[in-house]
Amino acid sequence: MVIGDYTVDQVIEKAQTLIEAMPYIKKFQGKTVVVKYGGSAMLDENLKYNVIKDVAMLKLVGMKPVIVHGGGKEISKWVEKVGKEAEFINGLRVTDAETMEIAEMVLGKVNKSLVSLMQKIGLKAVGISGKDGGMFTVKKKFPGGKDIGYVGEITNVDTSILTSLIEDDFIPVIAPIGVDENYEDYNINADDAACAVATALEAEKLVFLTDIEGVFIDPTDKSTLISEMDIHEAKDIIEKGVVGGGMLPKLNNCIAAMENGVSRVHILDGRLQHCLLLEFFTQKGIGTAILKEPLF
Amino acid sequence: MVIGDYTVDQVIEKAQTLIEAMPYIKKFQGKTVVVKYGGSAMLDENLKYNVIKDVAMLKLVGMKPVIVHGGGKEISKWVEKVGKEAEFINGLRVTDAETMEIAEMVLGKVNKSLVSLMQKIGLKAVGISGKDGGMFTVKKKFPGGKDIGYVGEITNVDTSILTSLIEDDFIPVIAPIGVDENYEDYNINADDAACAVATALEAEKLVFLTDIEGVFIDPTDKSTLISEMDIHEAKDIIEKGVVGGGMLPKLNNCIAAMENGVSRVHILDGRLQHCLLLEFFTQKGIGTAILKEPLF
Amino acid sequence: MVIGDYTVDQVIEKAQTLIEAMPYIKKFQGKTVVVKYGGSAMLDENLKYNVIKDVAMLKLVGMKPVIVHGGGKEISKWVEKVGKEAEFINGLRVTDAETMEIAEMVLGKVNKSLVSLMQKIGLKAVGISGKDGGMFTVKKKFPGGKDIGYVGEITNVDTSILTSLIEDDFIPVIAPIGVDENYEDYNINADDAACAVATALEAEKLVFLTDIEGVFIDPTDKSTLISEMDIHEAKDIIEKGVVGGGMLPKLNNCIAAMENGVSRVHILDGRLQHCLLLEFFTQKGIGTAILKEPLF
Amino acid sequence: MVIGDYTVDQVIEKAQTLIEAMPYIKKFQGKTVVVKYGGSAMLDENLKYNVIKDVAMLKLVGMKPVIVHGGGKEISKWVEKVGKEAEFINGLRVTDAETMEIAEMVLGKVNKSLVSLMQKIGLKAVGISGKDGGMFTVKKKFPGGKDIGYVGEITNVDTSILTSLIEDDFIPVIAPIGVDENYEDYNINADDAACAVATALEAEKLVFLTDIEGVFIDPTDKSTLISEMDIHEAKDIIEKGVVGGGMLPKLNNCIAAMENGVSRVHILDGRLQHCLLLEFFTQKGIGTAILKEPLF
Amino acid sequence: MVIGDYTVDQVIEKAQTLIEAMPYIKKFQGKTVVVKYGGSAMLDENLKYNVIKDVAMLKLVGMKPVIVHGGGKEISKWVEKVGKEAEFINGLRVTDAETMEIAEMVLGKVNKSLVSLMQKIGLKAVGISGKDGGMFTVKKKFPGGKDIGYVGEITNVDTSILTSLIEDDFIPVIAPIGVDENYEDYNINADDAACAVATALEAEKLVFLTDIEGVFIDPTDKSTLISEMDIHEAKDIIEKGVVGGGMLPKLNNCIAAMENGVSRVHILDGRLQHCLLLEFFTQKGIGTAILKEPLF
Amino acid sequence: MVIGDYTVDQVIEKAQTLIEAMPYIKKFQGKTVVVKYGGSAMLDENLKYNVIKDVAMLKLVGMKPVIVHGGGKEISKWVEKVGKEAEFINGLRVTDAETMEIAEMVLGKVNKSLVSLMQKIGLKAVGISGKDGGMFTVKKKFPGGKDIGYVGEITNVDTSILTSLIEDDFIPVIAPIGVDENYEDYNINADDAACAVATALEAEKLVFLTDIEGVFIDPTDKSTLISEMDIHEAKDIIEKGVVGGGMLPKLNNCIAAMENGVSRVHILDGRLQHCLLLEFFTQKGIGTAILKEPLF
Repeated sequence: MVIGDYTVDQVIEKAQTLIEAMPYIKKFQGKTVVVKYGGSAMLDENLKYNVIKDVAMLKLVGMKPVIVHGGGKEISKWVEKVGKEAEFINGLRVTDAETMEIAEMVLGKVNKSLVSLMQKIGLKAVGISGKDGGMFTVKKKFPGGKDIGYVGEITNVDTSILTSLIEDDFIPVIAPIGVDENYEDYNINADDAACAVATALEAEKLVFLTDIEGVFIDPTDKSTLISEMDIHEAKDIIEKGVVGGGMLPKLNNCIAAMENGVSRVHILDGRLQHCLLLEFFTQKGIGTAILKEPLF
Repeated sequence: MVIGDYTVDQVIEKAQTLIEAMPYIKKFQGKTVVVKYGGSAMLDENLKYNVIKDVAMLKLVGMKPVIVHGGGKEISKWVEKVGKEAEFINGLRVTDAETMEIAEMVLGKVNKSLVSLMQKIGLKAVGISGKDGGMFTVKKKFPGGKDIGYVGEITNVDTSILTSLIEDDFIPVIAPIGVDENYEDYNINADDAACAVATALEAEKLVFLTDIEGVFIDPTDKSTLISEMDIHEAKDIIEKGVVGGGMLPKLNNCIAAMENGVSRVHILDGRLQHCLLLEFFTQKGIGTAILKEPLF
Repeated sequence: MVIGDYTVDQVIEKAQTLIEAMPYIKKFQGKTVVVKYGGSAMLDENLKYNVIKDVAMLKLVGMKPVIVHGGGKEISKWVEKVGKEAEFINGLRVTDAETMEIAEMVLGKVNKSLVSLMQKIGLKAVGISGKDGGMFTVKKKFPGGKDIGYVGEITNVDTSILTSLIEDDFIPVIAPIGVDENYEDYNINADDAACAVATALEAEKLVFLTDIEGVFIDPTDKSTLISEMDIHEAKDIIEKGVVGGGMLPKLNNCIAAMENGVSRVHILDGRLQHCLLLEFFTQKGIGTAILKEPLF
Repeated sequence: MVIGDYTVDQVIEKAQTLIEAMPYIKKFQGKTVVVKYGGSAMLDENLKYNVIKDVAMLKLVGMKPVIVHGGGKEISKWVEKVGKEAEFINGLRVTDAETMEIAEMVLGKVNKSLVSLMQKIGLKAVGISGKDGGMFTVKKKFPGGKDIGYVGEITNVDTSILTSLIEDDFIPVIAPIGVDENYEDYNINADDAACAVATALEAEKLVFLTDIEGVFIDPTDKSTLISEMDIHEAKDIIEKGVVGGGMLPKLNNCIAAMENGVSRVHILDGRLQHCLLLEFFTQKGIGTAILKEPLF
Repeated sequence: MVIGDYTVDQVIEKAQTLIEAMPYIKKFQGKTVVVKYGGSAMLDENLKYNVIKDVAMLKLVGMKPVIVHGGGKEISKWVEKVGKEAEFINGLRVTDAETMEIAEMVLGKVNKSLVSLMQKIGLKAVGISGKDGGMFTVKKKFPGGKDIGYVGEITNVDTSILTSLIEDDFIPVIAPIGVDENYEDYNINADDAACAVATALEAEKLVFLTDIEGVFIDPTDKSTLISEMDIHEAKDIIEKGVVGGGMLPKLNNCIAAMENGVSRVHILDGRLQHCLLLEFFTQKGIGTAILKEPLF
Repeated sequence: MVIGDYTVDQVIEKAQTLIEAMPYIKKFQGKTVVVKYGGSAMLDENLKYNVIKDVAMLKLVGMKPVIVHGGGKEISKWVEKVGKEAEFINGLRVTDAETMEIAEMVLGKVNKSLVSLMQKIGLKAVGISGKDGGMFTVKKKFPGGKDIGYVGEITNVDTSILTSLIEDDFIPVIAPIGVDENYEDYNINADDAACAVATALEAEKLVFLTDIEGVFIDPTDKSTLISEMDIHEAKDIIEKGVVGGGMLPKLNNCIAAMENGVSRVHILDGRLQHCLLLEFFTQKGIGTAILKEPLF
């Protein structure tokens, strides 16, 4: 017997895939999930489309996704367009007033372009920055004691606008901009913003879509990928100096988030198609998970 | 790369199966679906388990399933057990007072056993008969003018107990028993009961789980299965005398239900694993569908 | 002057009867009342009708009645009907798998017949067993260390289905069947079930309709009826060996219920017409009451 | 057997009186009932106590009573106390400014005294006049074309304060005072006020407690009491000149109320103990009823 | 340029007055404010109109005003009208049964006349006394050990009728009458009643409209007005014997109210036009304020 | 007497200004008011601050303001900054893909800067564009039949995001960007967007803050300002060719809005301090009003 283009065995396999997803859907239904969206997954149109489809699926089966995005490469492009040179100290962009202005404009553009893509796919999305509803209060960062301009760290998250949007079934899409107590604008690292939002919302999950496959004990040896660890193991790894580069602050962020109420954090390779769905709905997830306790 | 027991391609295919289900989930979310559950699918433990799993999936992604079941073979078994002989006229059981008592007891047992299985799988289920909350009012049937005892047809459905259970997230499981205006007990044909419930609830879908693969133009030729027809075509087939046996009253029921507000009716082969899921979540469904209009 | 068939004095006396009921209605309005319904009051059609009328009155003036029933004699009748012999150890029915099946079927029949009678009188009633909504979880009983089959004691009551029905103005009618952790079926003593339900619902009152007039210090001397006692006196009586037979476990149940939040327990003679109303609405109640504190 | 001070038969009779009241309670539960309270029933302390008890019973079993009272004899007493002479034209009090002031003060006193008595019995009552919440708007009456001062007829009822009190479970007690468009004070006939309130609230019943036993075809012959009539019969009686005196305007009021949505009107003898309860809860009521259709 | 009758500068000044009021509106929005209304402000028609306008403004911008009024001079007038002589001991009226009756009638008249004026201006007002909804329970006062009749002090405030009216957007207007445990009527000092109400409602503000400009260190020297003090200073002043006359009990009342949850108390000169608005909406208020902490 | 820095007469005048505002506050409480914010009022920091203060006052006294802003001059500045030349046809900006990108970025920046200023003043504001929640659907404009690129006109407004924000007490601040059916970005004239929003929300008022004092019959003669006109007069003026320039489309917009449910439209000079407050809260407003009917 043949059903449409498939054999009976094929369609039954499809049904079983759905059945397999059941305990995961049940587990996360009604839960808030914060996704830090950046890197290649935001630049490649096909990957972008797949990520949004995945978010749509999470929403459809009853989760409450919140997106926090960055905009790194686009900012540099526009800084150059107006004849300035991009400058970095300790991996952080030196941000004078004009750069800040450009950063906000570019993040705004990226923000609305994501919203528009989500609407196109049938999601209800609203793009906001940390200024809206007074969401992010920040203070200036002095990395290594240096003043690098309008780069801030979040000191408070007012979740009222988020709660309001989520309750009315909108997906919030957040650009990492905030103001200090004098209402001066500041740029915020998107990973930091995602952590702060996840913590403030007491999210069930915080997912980082990155350009690497996860945390490796030896980055040159793919077989040393760590699939799962708890907070203690994560701290251990940091102490032993195993991880470095961009992964170090990310891992510190993960630990902080979990110590403040987030139940699990995932570092996924955004370049893998449907990585979000695979993470949520299959028993053997992908990337690196930091867990308080085993899922089942 | 390998993820758990699967290759990357396999897991991506799994993700795509979920993505494929999205438009169907969206279409039926929040909708009432009445499932007439009978035949082999109710006798074989493995099929039973699969049907309940499918119902669980429908509930999990936001539909409102209602189950109506029969109990035919079990009733005969118990009638014999107390030393009576089963007698049928025009395919309807001749039902004296003692047979009626046994029928109600057996349907009650089947009802609670289904409820218990559903609870075991994690569903919240409540078993009721048409007596509860005064749900079914019936009048005596006189098939071919003959009095065959306590066999009734439904004249009114009071949906208040169904609405109450559905709103509180329980799945109603219904045994087809009712009372007439003098509160005498009557046995009801389960197909009829399913139709009456679907009509009263203005259900989106009414599904019959049967022991045949669908409606055939020529039952001896599997290639003549009708996948889809509208009401007019269904009436046409009846007039032409194409269908007969148990399928004729079922088809008449389908037509009546659709003329009273049900949007689509399906006749599925309950012996096919996960037939419910396949029907709901794949483009090319199975069995025979009677539709008002195409799904997409 | 004459009003209808009555003299003025007679109608004024009627009005005074209503006025007398006022403080009792006020006292119990909005309160949950669990009635264990069994014995003669369930077998005699006239008594049955009177009990249901009384329940209707309680509901009408704003109480929330819940009925728990047994089915003892009917079960034995059907066990014999299929050619088995009833066997009892320590007053508990030895319950093999087939007996269990019959017990569930008979209790189901009794359950729906009560529901139907209540509907007939104008009440909204729904019949459930401990399987519905996973209400009763049980474990096997070993009376005197003996395995007598599927006889269970309640270890947990999930009140969600009860609350749901009560809030929507239905009267729950409960058959004492439950499942253990492996979803095996068990028969439960109806007195035990009534106690467990009253405790779980934090009922205001638990009433046992029995075939005796109350608790006597000397059962052979009607003048030794105890109208009222508190928990300490009840315990005292048990210790002194004053009560025995079926009354002993009932009294133990009463004490347990009151130690778990039920405010008062009554043992009434169900053979007395309108015994429920008399108990609720007249100053000098009937039967034996076990109270925490005086009513007024 | 003896229960308290009663024989078993006596207590069963009591229970049956409660059971008899059931269909009437059911019929009127949740319904608004306006009681015009005046005459002897308001002067005799014992009758007063009985009327309030009756109102309490109506409230307790779920009705929504509203009281409108007069104050006739008390007003005359106080008018004389300050050295004025009471003057009447066509049965209406000639009301100059000072008389108006006294009327309002006396009605206020009567109003609060009723409230206080109701509170004492355990009811939640609030005394208002037509000025509160702008309830009554009136225009001056010119009986027979004559200006008799501050005597008004109601042109509008703003029910917002009544609805607010009723919803919060208070019984409104209304003094028949209102203002015209210039916010001048006016006295209103209490019968008129009761009719206007019943009409505006679309009350189920409007009851007049009076000093006569009902409407008689021949007032000198008690046997000619009319127990029940419909609107047409009521109009007929008026046309034929059968009724006169204070009954004529009352009857006209009744007819007007029923033509504007009130379902039934009763004229009762307030001097008969518990007349309200007898009217509501016994099959053969007392006094004269004007009905749209038979009660059962 | 000229706008209507004003120059541009004048209209801008008007706008700035509104802007100046903003922080005060914001501060008190949603807060309960109890106003003791008495003295000249209640007798002069123009002042009365201005006070009500002010109350309307408070309500309009979102506060919840509650009015408590007295009726002193009117009571004496009516006492004399019926030929009695007013008698005072320690400033309290000797109140026999007839005087009590007159007091209640007069306060009722004053009450409804205030309500009517408020309705005229567009406010929704309801006049109640302490008898309504059982609001005030009192006990007899024995000033200096003497029995001066029906003069009571409040021992309990049941706020349910107040809450009910306030939630439905009515302004309660309260006459200071109450009953003791035997439901005997008592007259209450209006200042005492205002304090009791403010305390029971946990009001934000309690304002006394009086006939003096505030508290003076030396009443003969206007320059010694105390604009602001805290509780300690208020107690200090009392101890030092600075204040006397009617101000002493008022001040004691203020202190008691603040020790029971009221945040600030004001003593204003009701003879000053719009004194309420000036107090609420300008930085430098008028009269004497007793504060827990500075407003901004 | 002196109160703070003012004489008694001055403070009473202040109070009277508040009292004068009462009928206007009452009239507009709970009503939606759309403010098109552009021109000088958006460039001058002092005027900006005053406009926002005025909006805060409207919100505080219970209105529901919605802001729609433009960004004209800033867009040109940034277009030049990246080395492009601004080009206009028929007063509309020729908008190629790059210009569109810049326009969106600049409007985003202006949007968030307004939001931030409002938050600073204590308002809860959220900045959105027509992409958020799929608010604006547009189609390409062909002014005079010419294709001038990404300039669109609104064909549909989905108000769900606006309703959601307003209900949760946020002030929506809207940038006039939208997408067509293919989700291409388009720039929208801010006046058009304000009209479309006011129409879709059935706003009570639509206010244009402009750089002129209103509509003049003869723009060279200030004395010919039209204070008030109805739709017919507005159409008349257009037909007679009295108005031209930017005022013509604005006037057409006003007429369209009023024909679609907006009750009144105002054209105000945003350069006048507190122009919004003056318009709302004084009898003789400023600028030009187009009304359906007189305000009082």
